[in-house]
Amino acid sequence: MRLKHKPWAKDKLNDFPQYVIANPEDCNGKWNEVFGNDHPLYIEVGTGKGRFITEMAKANPHINFLGIEVYESVIVHALDKLIESEIPNCKLLSVNANDLRNFFNKGEVSRVYLNFSDPWPKTRHAKRRLTYKTYLSIYEDILPDMGEIHFKTDNQGLFEYSLISMSHYGMLLNFISLDLHNSDYEGNIMTEYEEKFSNKGSRIYRVEAQFPSKK
Amino acid sequence: MRLKHKPWAKDKLNDFPQYVIANPEDCNGKWNEVFGNDHPLYIEVGTGKGRFITEMAKANPHINFLGIEVYESVIVHALDKLIESEIPNCKLLSVNANDLRNFFNKGEVSRVYLNFSDPWPKTRHAKRRLTYKTYLSIYEDILPDMGEIHFKTDNQGLFEYSLISMSHYGMLLNFISLDLHNSDYEGNIMTEYEEKFSNKGSRIYRVEAQFPSKK
Repeated sequence: MRLKHKPWAKDKLNDFPQYVIANPEDCNGKWNEVFGNDHPLYIEVGTGKGRFITEMAKANPHINFLGIEVYESVIVHALDKLIESEIPNCKLLSVNANDLRNFFNKGEVSRVYLNFSDPWPKTRHAKRRLTYKTYLSIYEDILPDMGEIHFKTDNQGLFEYSLISMSHYGMLLNFISLDLHNSDYEGNIMTEYEEKFSNKGSRIYRVEAQFPSKK
Repeated sequence: MRLKHKPWAKDKLNDFPQYVIANPEDCNGKWNEVFGNDHPLYIEVGTGKGRFITEMAKANPHINFLGIEVYESVIVHALDKLIESEIPNCKLLSVNANDLRNFFNKGEVSRVYLNFSDPWPKTRHAKRRLTYKTYLSIYEDILPDMGEIHFKTDNQGLFEYSLISMSHYGMLLNFISLDLHNSDYEGNIMTEYEEKFSNKGSRIYRVEAQFPSKK
């Protein structure tokens, strides 16, 4: 994604503490208090401009959603959607995915979504891919036993890599579509990126993968 | 595959005992004697008209190849290729894949190839797919510990199913291509079917999957 410098973004995020979590360390173990209910918490790592997470939140009012995006100049667009639609069950967090263990207890996150993550196509950058084993380990540590990742991408190389990485981590592949938009999968909510690139003819790949039981 | 009745096929197969194994039960534990050397044995389950197995045998003279195909009216075309090219390291077997345990000791087969297997698209026929768990169990029993299956197909549904089935069996996915003919994979030998359907624009999917260690 091309990033424009938006010096005002930080201030705008700070102006809406009801939507943007400023001190996520303080929420560790207390996310139900933050949302004011005991609904399950689904997070999207790399939430971009937020269309997926906000539409998911509208469609699933009894689930709490948290969109995580490191770039303030990008997540500010997700904030605009929350302000406009007044979505109570969706909040945002501008942090690095490497730090997620600091913000969630084991099992506090009920599902992790990864959508159109940066493919980092060069082999020497494989460790930066959000499906590299160190990231899988982070997700495993904040999900419950046998927790799930739902991942979609239009990038063939990243999808091939991710299936292999998940398999070698010991994850179970429970659902795979190699052409999501021509499948019988129902209820797909598109990201901004997904709509643009599928309109250009790109296939969308999707997998639901589950961590093995540690019991 | 559309099958033509060829009443003469059985007789022709019987006429070439140097290429077609008539009593595979008697070869169990003795395949090195059958081939007259101690090279590794690779088998193709569902060898069809035999282009893959015969070309592989020509390209790899220090490996023994065995093409397995239940339909005599089909495998007779593979026999024609062996007769024409006089390939010493390739033989044929017309048996049902369900019976493979009767013909091979544990570890006697060094690799299993599955190419363009019948997709059996109806869910109620899933048990007939050659990547269903009962077949995976058969392959595991004749391969060495951590043995490998190399599988390719143009059938999207069968490939999705097979990745899930292999994952749930505990297999490691070591290599995946979602578009083999536009990948950097080298040395691909096409089946008759593969050439026909890739020329029509079908994508070819390929996976190398490995059984988990039992040690």
